[in-house]
Amino acid sequence: MTSLDTTTILPSGQDLDTAIAEGQRAYELDRAHVFHSWSAQAQIKPMTVLAAEGSYVWDGEGNRLLDFSSQLVNTNIGHQHPKVVAAIAEQAAKLCTIAPSHVNAARSEAARLIAERTPGDLNRVFFTNAGADAVEHAIRMARLHTGRYKVLARYRSYHGGTDTAINLTGDPRRWPNDYGNSGVVHFNGPFLYRSSFNAETEEQESQRALEYLDKLIQMEGPSSFAAIILESVPGTAGIMVPPPGYMAGVREICNKYGIVMIADEVMAGFGRTGKWFAIQNFDVVPDLMTFAKGVTSGYVPLGGVAINDAIAATFADRAYPGGLTYSGHPLATACAVATINVMEDENMVGNAARIGSDVLGPGLRELAAKHPSVGEVRGLGVFWAIELVANQATREPLAPYGGNSPAMVATLGALKSGGLLPFANFNRIHAVPPCNVSDDEVAEGLRILDAALTVADGFVS
Amino acid sequence: MTSLDTTTILPSGQDLDTAIAEGQRAYELDRAHVFHSWSAQAQIKPMTVLAAEGSYVWDGEGNRLLDFSSQLVNTNIGHQHPKVVAAIAEQAAKLCTIAPSHVNAARSEAARLIAERTPGDLNRVFFTNAGADAVEHAIRMARLHTGRYKVLARYRSYHGGTDTAINLTGDPRRWPNDYGNSGVVHFNGPFLYRSSFNAETEEQESQRALEYLDKLIQMEGPSSFAAIILESVPGTAGIMVPPPGYMAGVREICNKYGIVMIADEVMAGFGRTGKWFAIQNFDVVPDLMTFAKGVTSGYVPLGGVAINDAIAATFADRAYPGGLTYSGHPLATACAVATINVMEDENMVGNAARIGSDVLGPGLRELAAKHPSVGEVRGLGVFWAIELVANQATREPLAPYGGNSPAMVATLGALKSGGLLPFANFNRIHAVPPCNVSDDEVAEGLRILDAALTVADGFVS
Repeated sequence: MTSLDTTTILPSGQDLDTAIAEGQRAYELDRAHVFHSWSAQAQIKPMTVLAAEGSYVWDGEGNRLLDFSSQLVNTNIGHQHPKVVAAIAEQAAKLCTIAPSHVNAARSEAARLIAERTPGDLNRVFFTNAGADAVEHAIRMARLHTGRYKVLARYRSYHGGTDTAINLTGDPRRWPNDYGNSGVVHFNGPFLYRSSFNAETEEQESQRALEYLDKLIQMEGPSSFAAIILESVPGTAGIMVPPPGYMAGVREICNKYGIVMIADEVMAGFGRTGKWFAIQNFDVVPDLMTFAKGVTSGYVPLGGVAINDAIAATFADRAYPGGLTYSGHPLATACAVATINVMEDENMVGNAARIGSDVLGPGLRELAAKHPSVGEVRGLGVFWAIELVANQATREPLAPYGGNSPAMVATLGALKSGGLLPFANFNRIHAVPPCNVSDDEVAEGLRILDAALTVADGFVS
Repeated sequence: MTSLDTTTILPSGQDLDTAIAEGQRAYELDRAHVFHSWSAQAQIKPMTVLAAEGSYVWDGEGNRLLDFSSQLVNTNIGHQHPKVVAAIAEQAAKLCTIAPSHVNAARSEAARLIAERTPGDLNRVFFTNAGADAVEHAIRMARLHTGRYKVLARYRSYHGGTDTAINLTGDPRRWPNDYGNSGVVHFNGPFLYRSSFNAETEEQESQRALEYLDKLIQMEGPSSFAAIILESVPGTAGIMVPPPGYMAGVREICNKYGIVMIADEVMAGFGRTGKWFAIQNFDVVPDLMTFAKGVTSGYVPLGGVAINDAIAATFADRAYPGGLTYSGHPLATACAVATINVMEDENMVGNAARIGSDVLGPGLRELAAKHPSVGEVRGLGVFWAIELVANQATREPLAPYGGNSPAMVATLGALKSGGLLPFANFNRIHAVPPCNVSDDEVAEGLRILDAALTVADGFVS
């Protein structure tokens, strides 16, 4: 842990003593008045964040931590990029907000920049506040476009926290929200390390997963499905990069049955996989594509749905029955414009690809070869999962699906005390730094991971 | 219409010619790439907004319009308040974003300021991105707190655009989204002008509406309802201020059957009715309260749920199964802090109350007495509806429920060409200026309304 001298000034320009005192007050007020996401409120001891810059955050005691979480995998340009901060201030001074029915220059330009980067004929953008409502609206468009209700979604997936989005989600967070009436049919996707298909190669896994999906649809009724939604690369659920042929096979199945293909790019989009959108790794064009997070790096909340021409035509002369007060919010879309432009100007997407293939990927594979607690590392770009196991032969996870374990607590504690802020889920640690992370920062992260994995090794049987 | 000289500089400091050219380009890009809320995309000709300040906006030709819409009834402090603009820039420079699991000073302070103003023991705040997800989460909390599924909601209401929120909504926008499985039972609330209860006085309307609600619950099963959600004063649906005793009666019904009372304050909250929250006009304490819009005046998207102690206790040691990436977003909550502080410092809530009782209310009643097209005006604070009718005796609306009419198009056109941007819904015009509107601006608005109502009078039979 890099403990800072108390005379240090934080990147925000704030004196550290002042910031720490402010942080203590913030903690007290938080515990009295803030209700936290996904938590048993009395059982959490949240970390205070005083400041952030680039790939680093400062905690409540002034310790600097390498942010290998990108928070919730959203700060794709790192923290506090000066050009984007300036663009926010500039748009705030010009025009903060306007109703979605009016035309605004920031919104128009953001839509242009996004449509320029999306694959195929995804030429129109419906802006939302974030990923969950993007997913809700994509499903709605698919249902009204097809006149069908049911939707296919993967197990081991996350699609958002609102009711429809959480019911699409294939993760235990769905369970308390599932009243059996969402119209969602879940299916197993390809995940060779924990294959649902007894496959031994990527080719087998891909082929068998597609056969299973096709048969499932035949049993459930091909004409009953409005959409298949799937993350182009599943994120929180484990960063399982689809094997060759899988996404193209899903596209074919959708074509065969007239099912809308929705690529959820909320976490995987905007550079994370070393392409603007993850689906561009597979040369597949979906009908709808949801995005959020990286579009503004989360500096201002924003999400959206990119819409192909056929679905847009459905709503040319028939009103789309959905909307929101802040659709295409000027401040948020100005932030998107600045974010996309700095990503372009500083070649962050290319950097993410290079980091994945030349630095982070090889480094993680070295750790995997060295540590018995590592079952597998997988990923691409700046989007990597370390799958921890109690036993490499049985592949028993170091924490159960949907749960926690002393081994994981100890490992995550070692990362934090080593100076790294991780993204973790069940038995996995995700290495998901910003797209503009430097080689040196990755090397620092790999060193801290190395030490923490030694702690995890102590729990291997 | 106040046509500006082309040498004029907009409030943003931008030269008007430059702004108009930028607006034309924005319009072209909008039509090519932006998908608009609630619209048949090929049939709209959206207005361009170049700039805004205080109670005014400037359209694509540089015409200044009095903003009697507050956009979507959200700019409660008017446009571009310099202190809030400065606070956004300041927080952007300090810390734009952080994950919801961490503690942040802006979020803590916003929660404190909100909890200080909410009635009763609504001491905790779950922050969301906007109103729709606030409503989704409030319903989820109520369902898990009670172990029940069904929810009561009013006809003539609006609760948001995501699936659960739009299914709670009692408005034609629900219809294409209603698959019959949302668990929502709709009921008629009090609305004396178009009484569902054959009432002739406010007392009768209140009493009969409560009896009907109680009987409906008895027939539907008192133990099957998790929640009743209702706007403290219904907004888009018509600004029907509940008659004396109604809200207290709903509170009693909720107590009797163990039903969670959710006050939706997304549009009515944060000063609009001349109180911080509209429910404070009725001395009633709900169990959950949703808010959005006015909390930041929409300058940065933000919403939330205020939670009472009993419901918070349900999630003290049991995880709340809901969340979102931007819950308690630092930039958004810093904007809320600044917004609440300027509302307090400049007595905007008091101004809204005074405008309603002394200026706008009396002025609208004068127009009602003068124009045969006005069936009724009603409201409080800066929250007023003008109900337009084709015939005062039959009360036939000037446009059908859920529809439009040449008479309404002509009336709204007269408002716009007179220099006023209205909020309109079916046969109603809403006069909903910011809370800090001046007496002179209200007088200007009343003059423009007067002229437009003369156009409406031409359609009266």
